[in-house]
Amino acid sequence: MSQQASRRDRLVAFRRELHRKPETAWTEFWTTARIVEELREVGVDHLYVGREAMDPDLRMSVPAGEELDVAWDRARNAGADPELLEAMRGGYTGCLAVLERGEGPTVALRVDIDGLPQREAEEGDHAPAGEGFRSEHEGQMHACGHDAHATFGLGVVEAVKESGFSGTLKVFFQPAEEVVGGGRAMAESGHLDDVDYLLAAHVGLDFPSGEVVAGMDGFLAVTQLRVDFDGHPAHAGKHPEEGYNAVQAMATAVQNLYGIPRHLDGATRINAGRVGGGTASNIVPEHAFIEMEARGETTELRDYVLERAESVLEGAATSHGCEASWEVVGEAPSATSDEELVDVVAEVAGGVRGVDSVRRRGDLGGSEDATYLMQYVQDNGGAATYVGIGTDHPGGHHTATFDVDEDSLEVGVDTLTGTILRLSERA
Amino acid sequence: MSQQASRRDRLVAFRRELHRKPETAWTEFWTTARIVEELREVGVDHLYVGREAMDPDLRMSVPAGEELDVAWDRARNAGADPELLEAMRGGYTGCLAVLERGEGPTVALRVDIDGLPQREAEEGDHAPAGEGFRSEHEGQMHACGHDAHATFGLGVVEAVKESGFSGTLKVFFQPAEEVVGGGRAMAESGHLDDVDYLLAAHVGLDFPSGEVVAGMDGFLAVTQLRVDFDGHPAHAGKHPEEGYNAVQAMATAVQNLYGIPRHLDGATRINAGRVGGGTASNIVPEHAFIEMEARGETTELRDYVLERAESVLEGAATSHGCEASWEVVGEAPSATSDEELVDVVAEVAGGVRGVDSVRRRGDLGGSEDATYLMQYVQDNGGAATYVGIGTDHPGGHHTATFDVDEDSLEVGVDTLTGTILRLSERA
Amino acid sequence: MSQQASRRDRLVAFRRELHRKPETAWTEFWTTARIVEELREVGVDHLYVGREAMDPDLRMSVPAGEELDVAWDRARNAGADPELLEAMRGGYTGCLAVLERGEGPTVALRVDIDGLPQREAEEGDHAPAGEGFRSEHEGQMHACGHDAHATFGLGVVEAVKESGFSGTLKVFFQPAEEVVGGGRAMAESGHLDDVDYLLAAHVGLDFPSGEVVAGMDGFLAVTQLRVDFDGHPAHAGKHPEEGYNAVQAMATAVQNLYGIPRHLDGATRINAGRVGGGTASNIVPEHAFIEMEARGETTELRDYVLERAESVLEGAATSHGCEASWEVVGEAPSATSDEELVDVVAEVAGGVRGVDSVRRRGDLGGSEDATYLMQYVQDNGGAATYVGIGTDHPGGHHTATFDVDEDSLEVGVDTLTGTILRLSERA
Amino acid sequence: MSQQASRRDRLVAFRRELHRKPETAWTEFWTTARIVEELREVGVDHLYVGREAMDPDLRMSVPAGEELDVAWDRARNAGADPELLEAMRGGYTGCLAVLERGEGPTVALRVDIDGLPQREAEEGDHAPAGEGFRSEHEGQMHACGHDAHATFGLGVVEAVKESGFSGTLKVFFQPAEEVVGGGRAMAESGHLDDVDYLLAAHVGLDFPSGEVVAGMDGFLAVTQLRVDFDGHPAHAGKHPEEGYNAVQAMATAVQNLYGIPRHLDGATRINAGRVGGGTASNIVPEHAFIEMEARGETTELRDYVLERAESVLEGAATSHGCEASWEVVGEAPSATSDEELVDVVAEVAGGVRGVDSVRRRGDLGGSEDATYLMQYVQDNGGAATYVGIGTDHPGGHHTATFDVDEDSLEVGVDTLTGTILRLSERA
Repeated sequence: MSQQASRRDRLVAFRRELHRKPETAWTEFWTTARIVEELREVGVDHLYVGREAMDPDLRMSVPAGEELDVAWDRARNAGADPELLEAMRGGYTGCLAVLERGEGPTVALRVDIDGLPQREAEEGDHAPAGEGFRSEHEGQMHACGHDAHATFGLGVVEAVKESGFSGTLKVFFQPAEEVVGGGRAMAESGHLDDVDYLLAAHVGLDFPSGEVVAGMDGFLAVTQLRVDFDGHPAHAGKHPEEGYNAVQAMATAVQNLYGIPRHLDGATRINAGRVGGGTASNIVPEHAFIEMEARGETTELRDYVLERAESVLEGAATSHGCEASWEVVGEAPSATSDEELVDVVAEVAGGVRGVDSVRRRGDLGGSEDATYLMQYVQDNGGAATYVGIGTDHPGGHHTATFDVDEDSLEVGVDTLTGTILRLSERA
Repeated sequence: MSQQASRRDRLVAFRRELHRKPETAWTEFWTTARIVEELREVGVDHLYVGREAMDPDLRMSVPAGEELDVAWDRARNAGADPELLEAMRGGYTGCLAVLERGEGPTVALRVDIDGLPQREAEEGDHAPAGEGFRSEHEGQMHACGHDAHATFGLGVVEAVKESGFSGTLKVFFQPAEEVVGGGRAMAESGHLDDVDYLLAAHVGLDFPSGEVVAGMDGFLAVTQLRVDFDGHPAHAGKHPEEGYNAVQAMATAVQNLYGIPRHLDGATRINAGRVGGGTASNIVPEHAFIEMEARGETTELRDYVLERAESVLEGAATSHGCEASWEVVGEAPSATSDEELVDVVAEVAGGVRGVDSVRRRGDLGGSEDATYLMQYVQDNGGAATYVGIGTDHPGGHHTATFDVDEDSLEVGVDTLTGTILRLSERA
Repeated sequence: MSQQASRRDRLVAFRRELHRKPETAWTEFWTTARIVEELREVGVDHLYVGREAMDPDLRMSVPAGEELDVAWDRARNAGADPELLEAMRGGYTGCLAVLERGEGPTVALRVDIDGLPQREAEEGDHAPAGEGFRSEHEGQMHACGHDAHATFGLGVVEAVKESGFSGTLKVFFQPAEEVVGGGRAMAESGHLDDVDYLLAAHVGLDFPSGEVVAGMDGFLAVTQLRVDFDGHPAHAGKHPEEGYNAVQAMATAVQNLYGIPRHLDGATRINAGRVGGGTASNIVPEHAFIEMEARGETTELRDYVLERAESVLEGAATSHGCEASWEVVGEAPSATSDEELVDVVAEVAGGVRGVDSVRRRGDLGGSEDATYLMQYVQDNGGAATYVGIGTDHPGGHHTATFDVDEDSLEVGVDTLTGTILRLSERA
Repeated sequence: MSQQASRRDRLVAFRRELHRKPETAWTEFWTTARIVEELREVGVDHLYVGREAMDPDLRMSVPAGEELDVAWDRARNAGADPELLEAMRGGYTGCLAVLERGEGPTVALRVDIDGLPQREAEEGDHAPAGEGFRSEHEGQMHACGHDAHATFGLGVVEAVKESGFSGTLKVFFQPAEEVVGGGRAMAESGHLDDVDYLLAAHVGLDFPSGEVVAGMDGFLAVTQLRVDFDGHPAHAGKHPEEGYNAVQAMATAVQNLYGIPRHLDGATRINAGRVGGGTASNIVPEHAFIEMEARGETTELRDYVLERAESVLEGAATSHGCEASWEVVGEAPSATSDEELVDVVAEVAGGVRGVDSVRRRGDLGGSEDATYLMQYVQDNGGAATYVGIGTDHPGGHHTATFDVDEDSLEVGVDTLTGTILRLSERA
């Protein structure tokens, strides 16, 4: 970000630059490279990229090699730093910036940086289209504001560095949140072991511009499974009796997955969101699959649904002489924001320019793998909160017309920076 | 049967007497007693009643003790011989009459004697109602002509005794055909071990009066199962998560039983004919059941369906954390009539008074446990055929208006007697 | 209740008398007659029995005539007042007692009086068995404490009458709560039109002896449906193609009922608690049924489930060429207790002998048709609360070993009477 | 085919040339062009290509434009006649050759020419691989012998032309048999109106080299449907209640399609051979589809299954608030071979060199759209038969190792030519 321009202009410019080149989960090659470039310009004490910022074995929902390669080539063609690219080859994206400023607590901020497989609206009344920063990657879009989140991260590093902050700041630029695939790998990287306070942030969520939510709760714990049913094919006209029909097994499973009983202790969810099977109308299907998820208001409730789901999958396969197998492809626990941090954020936000409403608590009602990091810190005796930065968004999250009110960029940076400074005074 | 009256009158009177008191499977107490009484009057060389005429361990589909007791008391109140009743207590009904007439082959005839749980029509144009011999047992009826079959058996014993027959004649009065429950117990009684030729007979089957079918085929092998699903109950409002829902398991099973694949080699059938489960709308059902059957054009095809069905039942139970258990409650194999006997029956029938059409072969298209006896004799080197005695029947089999044309009684007796005599000449 | 004995002894004796003769929904003939007898002895200003205490057209879940007749005869044989019995013939049970004591508010108390179709434990450590007041009606039992509730009602009338109460007291002895069948009929009887305050009460609910819950919430709105599927029968072996299989339709419906989506706004429930269909394993089933319920944390949520359920039922029938029809057989809305009454109950309960813990609010988590009365009063501008009277109960509600701690009887009477008096002072 | 080489060599060479360039349904651009080229060389009286040889509106299962374009370009690059290609653009493939040789009956031969979407084996013991004529079109293969069929057609035209044949010969080179998509369009082209005798032929079918089957029966009538379910998407975690789940509708349909009752009158088949739906595990699926087929031993039986299937599809959609729509994408009736033609083929085949076994009748047990042409001719008073030309095939039809014994090429040509000549003598 050019230091000549006003801070607001610089934040807006960077967010728009990212907006133009959205990259989906584990393909944030260009995005990571640009963030690193900016961090180098600001100057940080330590910079960890890709594998160094995570436990590489714990990545989930990594796409196929071909998809990674296409995105990697695209990033190279767009001029990303070849050395960085080489380090990230294979989908090891994201990074961690560390400022060491003497005595004091270790405070961490986690922002996510991936885009979505969503085509962006091209009508002129959609600001990115009208003002020329619509996605250049057809079929991919920053439709959930992670371009703003990355900008928050960068803005906070810069502001904290210029402040009288005393202690250690770690800003995690996390890849692959949308597939709940990157949180755990960063949580268990070792970099969180000494963290006293963790902040995570999200724009929008139906809160208007000018509102800050000091602590979000209501994270649904989630597990995403890939399920495969393997049977035996047969000529459907001539030898139906030779088939063990994987599509029948899958359909039986779908019927019964949705029939898993509700639970006294709170909300649960189940969804067989993507299914398929078979090859042609005249062949008894040999193979079928389900991409599904189970959620719960608590991790225990999610696990209850999962346990029931496993019986359903086994039973459905058995019913049709098939084999069922499955693997976890994405996961996040539930979490709650700690009251002591909610207090600090609420107090700080009240004094931030542009904030006209401070809400103590809000409900996410969805899932987020920031919970892995929150839980890790809390389990180690630290405290965590998930902060909502309100923004007027014309379309809903994950839709073609989503956009953020760019006034929220400074609100986010100031609220988070202010909280970090206040926390540093606590030691 | 009074010897003074004409034979036709006596046959008709006996058939009507039985028609008035139909008794369902394994409760043919009064019926058996009446048959024995008549056989004693005719005079036979050996008479085996109940347990003596079967392997008692092989009875299937025996009703509950209470149902047996009610029918037993009814038979006693109707004046059945107390000594015979005592021997049959517990549902050991049916009998076997043997004539030993010197050298010659052993020829057997099997007739069945049970009624159906069907209410009989009471309109005057239904002959039994109009002529005063409608069922006195409300809700039970001879709706499949077994009253005529028992009459065939008695008429044949009488006619053979009076003839110059040389050899041994065994007439099996079999209980519990309608639930395919009595055939196997009689087949494996030991009494068939020396049988050279077996005849079985049925009236009607959509063949008109005056027609005889010398050999029936197309018996579907059948197995009837009683399936129980046991889960765990729960308060449906308060603790849905505590339930393991047996009705969900049962419904899953029903869906997938009907989805068992068809087979290249021929016709198969599946039916979940009676189901139930649960106790009240606000309790998660702990228990459910299916009374089902599998059929096949051959015994192998029936077994194919059964094998698939077992996977379905296991899988359905697993899907909902329940246990499934099942037992065979009725069974009959497939069978075909032997050409050499078909020849004899066809030839004899051509000369019987009242017969104006002889058909060599017909298809049953249903199931019958006479097949156990046929198969047993055939496996021992003997020959068997299933003879159709046409009769105009106003209503279909198993309906409230079924009735037989009583002219068919003598046709049946004469065709079967003639065949037995012709076979005795073969030795 | 004999006036010579101590009040406690009289309450206990009456409760045990009722416990010995439990009567299920709409068959509370003897129970109502005994209550009326006692009320006459106490002396009330108005007494409305059966039809007079309800809108007779709004009864739900009334059992078949035969079941009513059997219970009615039993009550007559037990010596119930013939005139009262005549008035209740056909299942018009329950009554309303009114005390008019001059100026002041109209306060109502609703108690329910029916038993359950549950066999009572006979082991000696089950107090009713050990102390000789076990149910004399085999298979029926006061397993939810409504014997105590009726005793509350009677005790309150007596105590209020003896007090300086000024105003009008109406005590509703409601039939058929267990099938959510009687609440609406009493709610819309007209007798609630002038009621300012309504109290309803329940013992137990997992609250211990000595605890009073001033206001219960968390009533799930419920609707119970009886669903019938009508298809066409066929011989399962011979003519499978002629059948339109009602059991397949029912199974399809069960599968999809449980698959109705969950709802953001709160808890929903669905249960196909009792199902059945078909007549025999060899007949394609012509008829099947489901006794089901839908619940929701709010009435809107319950209606959402119902609306989805109707599509499922239609679709399942269509899938198999059947007709589906259904009727509401039981129903209750959701409700909440009014804060102003909760305050009064909590205050009063604090001073009642035997109370050592007062809880302001508790969650029922089930359904109750007292909500019809609560809602009616609230819609008319009045206030209502549902009071929990803790009692140690060895077995859970609706189980064979349920029993109440009889010390709770006076706690209930005193808490409710005290609240009524306090409210009368408000006018 | 070069006239210098022996006939056998020429037939083999042409078959191998086609084998090298298999083209799937409606993309037989190069194949048709090569056949036309050869026919022109032989010299025929009339030649109809593409649209001229069919009713273009009756094509079924035509692939998407892109797939057509890719194949068309490939054919052009392979050197196919540009003028012919232009005529076939859009998937109007296949042709008809006519010889007019004076007085006499009109005899037609139908051969099919399309390949399959099957990868060909590359092991050396698979003759096409070992001898260098393996498919050059990766993923496509002549795995059902249509390369031999086209060769039969050409060989017959040549042989009949050189013979003393008197009458009219029409040889139909039909596209798109594998998707039962081309038969009807050719049947209703008008070119069959004057046909007296129709022959269709197939190699293999598990009959060995040296065997000829004079008449095939047992064609299962088939209809292939594409079914779409449209619902409404929703966020599966946050707003499950907003979704109308197309995957649940599809699964319900699959379960019940397989549960369509069997039929007394003969074999039926149902298969949901390819299904899919949804986009991601966290979205309630908006869309799902089924590619299915219904078959019957007769056209009536197939229609019975279809009619039941339509109820199932409607019902499944209704159950989940979705819309179901479907279209027929392939279809063929049942058919039987006429005895009079079976006689002629059997007689002729007995005298053909290389034939050592003549079977009068065989069962296909699958589906074939030659039945459209057979039925059309039969309905117009003509006669038709489907001739099996046995060939030893190492792998089964439609598998990667399928191949034909090239000795069968002359057997096929001679049997068909001989029959045509014999029929011409009948006039």
